[in-house]
Amino acid sequence: MTGRPLRLHPDRLLPADPSTRAIARRLLEQVEPLPIISPHGHCDPRWWADDEPFADPATLLITGDHYVLRMLHSAGVRLDALGRVPLDGGPVADPRRVWRTFAAHYDLFHATPSRLWLDHALSVVLGADVVPDADNADRLFDELSERLAEPAFRPRALFDRFGIEFLATTESPLDDLADHRAIRASGWGGNVVTAFRPDSVVDPDHPEFPANLERLAELSGIATDSWAGYLDALAERRRFFIAHGATSTDHGHPSAATADLSADDAAALFARVRAGEHTPDDAEAFRAQMLTEMVRMSLDDGLVVQLHPGSCRNHDRPGAARFGPDIGADIPTRTDYVAALRPLLERFGHEPGLTLVVFTLDETTYSRELAPLAGYYPILALGAPWWFHDSPEGMRRFRTGTTGTAGFANTAGFTDDTRALLSIPARHDVARRVDCAHLAGLVAEHRLDEDVAARIAVELTYDRPRSVYRVDRSRFSAR
Amino acid sequence: MTGRPLRLHPDRLLPADPSTRAIARRLLEQVEPLPIISPHGHCDPRWWADDEPFADPATLLITGDHYVLRMLHSAGVRLDALGRVPLDGGPVADPRRVWRTFAAHYDLFHATPSRLWLDHALSVVLGADVVPDADNADRLFDELSERLAEPAFRPRALFDRFGIEFLATTESPLDDLADHRAIRASGWGGNVVTAFRPDSVVDPDHPEFPANLERLAELSGIATDSWAGYLDALAERRRFFIAHGATSTDHGHPSAATADLSADDAAALFARVRAGEHTPDDAEAFRAQMLTEMVRMSLDDGLVVQLHPGSCRNHDRPGAARFGPDIGADIPTRTDYVAALRPLLERFGHEPGLTLVVFTLDETTYSRELAPLAGYYPILALGAPWWFHDSPEGMRRFRTGTTGTAGFANTAGFTDDTRALLSIPARHDVARRVDCAHLAGLVAEHRLDEDVAARIAVELTYDRPRSVYRVDRSRFSAR
Amino acid sequence: MTGRPLRLHPDRLLPADPSTRAIARRLLEQVEPLPIISPHGHCDPRWWADDEPFADPATLLITGDHYVLRMLHSAGVRLDALGRVPLDGGPVADPRRVWRTFAAHYDLFHATPSRLWLDHALSVVLGADVVPDADNADRLFDELSERLAEPAFRPRALFDRFGIEFLATTESPLDDLADHRAIRASGWGGNVVTAFRPDSVVDPDHPEFPANLERLAELSGIATDSWAGYLDALAERRRFFIAHGATSTDHGHPSAATADLSADDAAALFARVRAGEHTPDDAEAFRAQMLTEMVRMSLDDGLVVQLHPGSCRNHDRPGAARFGPDIGADIPTRTDYVAALRPLLERFGHEPGLTLVVFTLDETTYSRELAPLAGYYPILALGAPWWFHDSPEGMRRFRTGTTGTAGFANTAGFTDDTRALLSIPARHDVARRVDCAHLAGLVAEHRLDEDVAARIAVELTYDRPRSVYRVDRSRFSAR
Repeated sequence: MTGRPLRLHPDRLLPADPSTRAIARRLLEQVEPLPIISPHGHCDPRWWADDEPFADPATLLITGDHYVLRMLHSAGVRLDALGRVPLDGGPVADPRRVWRTFAAHYDLFHATPSRLWLDHALSVVLGADVVPDADNADRLFDELSERLAEPAFRPRALFDRFGIEFLATTESPLDDLADHRAIRASGWGGNVVTAFRPDSVVDPDHPEFPANLERLAELSGIATDSWAGYLDALAERRRFFIAHGATSTDHGHPSAATADLSADDAAALFARVRAGEHTPDDAEAFRAQMLTEMVRMSLDDGLVVQLHPGSCRNHDRPGAARFGPDIGADIPTRTDYVAALRPLLERFGHEPGLTLVVFTLDETTYSRELAPLAGYYPILALGAPWWFHDSPEGMRRFRTGTTGTAGFANTAGFTDDTRALLSIPARHDVARRVDCAHLAGLVAEHRLDEDVAARIAVELTYDRPRSVYRVDRSRFSAR
Repeated sequence: MTGRPLRLHPDRLLPADPSTRAIARRLLEQVEPLPIISPHGHCDPRWWADDEPFADPATLLITGDHYVLRMLHSAGVRLDALGRVPLDGGPVADPRRVWRTFAAHYDLFHATPSRLWLDHALSVVLGADVVPDADNADRLFDELSERLAEPAFRPRALFDRFGIEFLATTESPLDDLADHRAIRASGWGGNVVTAFRPDSVVDPDHPEFPANLERLAELSGIATDSWAGYLDALAERRRFFIAHGATSTDHGHPSAATADLSADDAAALFARVRAGEHTPDDAEAFRAQMLTEMVRMSLDDGLVVQLHPGSCRNHDRPGAARFGPDIGADIPTRTDYVAALRPLLERFGHEPGLTLVVFTLDETTYSRELAPLAGYYPILALGAPWWFHDSPEGMRRFRTGTTGTAGFANTAGFTDDTRALLSIPARHDVARRVDCAHLAGLVAEHRLDEDVAARIAVELTYDRPRSVYRVDRSRFSAR
Repeated sequence: MTGRPLRLHPDRLLPADPSTRAIARRLLEQVEPLPIISPHGHCDPRWWADDEPFADPATLLITGDHYVLRMLHSAGVRLDALGRVPLDGGPVADPRRVWRTFAAHYDLFHATPSRLWLDHALSVVLGADVVPDADNADRLFDELSERLAEPAFRPRALFDRFGIEFLATTESPLDDLADHRAIRASGWGGNVVTAFRPDSVVDPDHPEFPANLERLAELSGIATDSWAGYLDALAERRRFFIAHGATSTDHGHPSAATADLSADDAAALFARVRAGEHTPDDAEAFRAQMLTEMVRMSLDDGLVVQLHPGSCRNHDRPGAARFGPDIGADIPTRTDYVAALRPLLERFGHEPGLTLVVFTLDETTYSRELAPLAGYYPILALGAPWWFHDSPEGMRRFRTGTTGTAGFANTAGFTDDTRALLSIPARHDVARRVDCAHLAGLVAEHRLDEDVAARIAVELTYDRPRSVYRVDRSRFSAR
């Protein structure tokens, strides 16, 4: 096929200095064969429940990936030209046209993480040997479409080929988790579990909040018209999720605010938000209190708590009204952790057996707030560089910004946090390479012995995510 | 002449690692011969209108350069000892004494961008072969003074020698642009155009705001006593500027706030600010609304919009009262873009043909706010690292902070933003070297093929500023 | 002894690139032999007054070092298991057990500055030749305990061995400085002086503030019941400290706020805070005004002013209630300098002979606020990277974030700021190596000649702290 040859260099992302590169290569040899632990992400469990072939490369790689969508859109490409269906049902480009547009704009991604993932997915996963361009777009689309129709490219086969040892999806408490049960019932051995993401039932600003409380009552069999009942219903759904293998909760709040209200104040606040009579401050206080309640429940049921704060969702409200969420218009905001986490940490920060993994979209907090907090409070672990910061440069800033104060042992290991299945091996590959490159630099500067660096590399890649996310405790016992 | 030899090393600013340096050299070979595009700066158009020789090296290189003034002042040198005339007319040092003081303090500038520019200006532009010091100060002053008197060192000759293909100055709507007409009328071929900087007529906090509205009415021939008239008068002045080659507007607001008021609310707000009956919040709202209005006008007339927010001007108010503005006492402040730009971007963020170039003095916004916004909204382009951040380190932080999310294609290319004429070739040289060094690092880490890196280097240097600033659309048609 | 060999590599912290490393080595040769200037720290002067042997390695290296405490605590180790005595007097682990716990967790410190200091203290200072681990803990504890009992390991002998030319401790105005007099009276030649830290008598939020005002009156012999008397009493104590060699004051405020109130307003504010009738805003305003008053007094008595703002002290209030302060639970906060310092700088920013050394826990302020302010106002000098930022990475960020705008000449040189005596040579060693590495990078990129870099290295290490902190003016004249 015509086009620039597509091949991944074996030394990609390793340092240019020859002696440091040689160290990094040796470290990488230790971690490259390790299985993938993916304890946080947004894959669709239905993929593995149904194990249907993916429709076509455009839908799989472009329309469903908000990183790709937004970059093409930033160059003036309309979202419907990328296959994104308007909520009012207007016409969209068919997958072949979407692919052509994408291929013609492939240069936009130079030096971005998307490019690293796409190149890897196209070549290593799908076997393409040319870089997409306007000339080869149609033939490449055909070739990749044929490949996706083969049995080896179905979701379960890919999962196995990727060497995934553990993968958690993320579901709402209102989800019946039928897909997860179907996966288990199928007899296929892939270890896919759920994670408990209660935003839609703890955020009074969620548009369906009142209805969601009703539905929560139905699913749990516990009335949610009182504060106590509401908490019991949530605890019940947590048990249900644990029975489907969950080891963690996940919270996507606008800020990192936590609260520690008295039971009476909390009950009164719940009454207001339930009645829809809350102010914006009430809504923030309620989310804040619910983070603390979730952590309190973890004392009992052992779920690891993940906090992903600080995204201004749907910054482009007209765009969201037209196309819905997840079009790439979520923008990071300045985020405070010091005052925000204090109520929670003062109450539970030293509890043995509790783990709170904190992520950030505000890199200024690495050295100023998060590393100091994680370097003191036993329950805290620093989540991997997240979302806009999952580039090699972002990963380097994470390590150089946190290690001095928090060390390696207060970090949680890599999480890919993706809904783009084909990017999973690439994302872990990038993280492993960047960590090995960083460690090699420490060895080259005589700050770490190479055998120690090799041990740390393995820990960061494999042991740490397994232990922080309590992979060994995952028990799938749902009928 | 006595003194440390002054020579620029051909590998200056290139990476130390030999293989990466070799790549960087080859990239630099591609961009070094390219002409200079300078679409944003603060040169005085009178220089080219009159083409008079510059008076002396001290006035040219020291008294007029706020970077140099402030650094010498930080060492305790008084501004009048640097030739800066107090507003009340007190005595100042003569140029030779200013030069002596400067030469004796030249070590202050080690490893600063000013030093890169001064060394370049002194050696490459002015032919000096020693570093200024206390011993050679007088002889160097004489030598440089003689040189400046030669025809080859007049403004037009320098412009030609520098290889400037396009240069925009910045003028207020109240400027009659006579200098620009004089340049064209002279028959000299240098492409010097204006840019439209309306701060003095859109900022109610400007001390001359009421008088400026009057003058705006006179110049435009349109009464400014109504909201509609005021907007028409501004649109008329924009047409006048376009007829003098302008392709852009420029806005130096304290914050990045934008607004999208109803016509009635905007008219009422205008009435208050025009009557001088506005609160500080009104002033901020008015500036915010005027940014949106300027962008709206660009829909019609095609001017590129530049936003330079976040400087606390005249931090030292007693100093400003004594010496006026531009003494180096403008200090960056924390700047929000996410909430601030939302009203504007929600309204116009997807308009084809519109370009908003955003600059920042707050580097924390690169990865957190600006790259994510520019990586989504089609109209946004990221301006080059600005003012306090135009050092090699600042330029590296710009690339490493924005490329992962915004790529190269959402950046605007280099703008020198200077009023120091002799620094122009040095500033572009530094930017080219730092970009080549950065690209070479990506090649050395196998993230970019070298031929692609070479293409990107040329784009960043030449094609991108030409296209973002619509250089080809510049039409000088004023009589 | 069993265990991993403990040796410091001679090239530790130097760049990996061979040519840059060679330059760095040559620079380091210039600064390695220089004496230590330690103008700011928190050592206990009693050590040198009494010259008693240190009790044991655990108390010396672990229980007294909040960096070490917090990191072990972050791994779930209780503070009483580290020898920290609860305020209510509960039982604590004995030193041998503390050492065992520490040794078993030594891996926590990989790639942290604590590890650099501990390795250095253990090997270079104490002569250990193995890395602590669980197996060698007891034998190493015994070996180090024996060593500490030797005369060569007493405080004065260590001071001399470390090559300390000048060391300032930090005391409250309520301290009688008897230890400092005892040091002088002993005839030992070590140059240990005090510094004036008035937080406890200028902060209305200090729990003992009213009693402290009484005590201040007693010690100074000047009534503190009026604003004028209070200021006089402080000035008197400053004279007392100057007579004990002090050359500086130090201020640990929650923010960098300064104020410039009229005398009447200040007196009224003082009356409110003295009566305990102040609001939180009053307390902040009083601290702000007192910074300005301290600077005003420095005009008369020549003390250098140090500002260390932005720590949220005792973030873990229950922990502080149990164990007191300095357990590692102080967390940095976002800090503003631009608006905060304006009242002070507008009044005194240009005063000849005045020096204000500003530190920060918020690295975002380096390039945005502090370097621009220090690059304009003559009185400002930038303090060394502080506390959470004293890692090699933090020191690099300090240089790369400030040099472009402030140069080297507006920085104050290194201060170790430690209460961990044995870490002093290590901390200065790290700072010298990182600065040499940074300078070597500038030489390798042809931005600085090597002889100039060598001169700068010596200045940063020795001349600058001596001159900024006015070491030559220190006169110990107390009876």
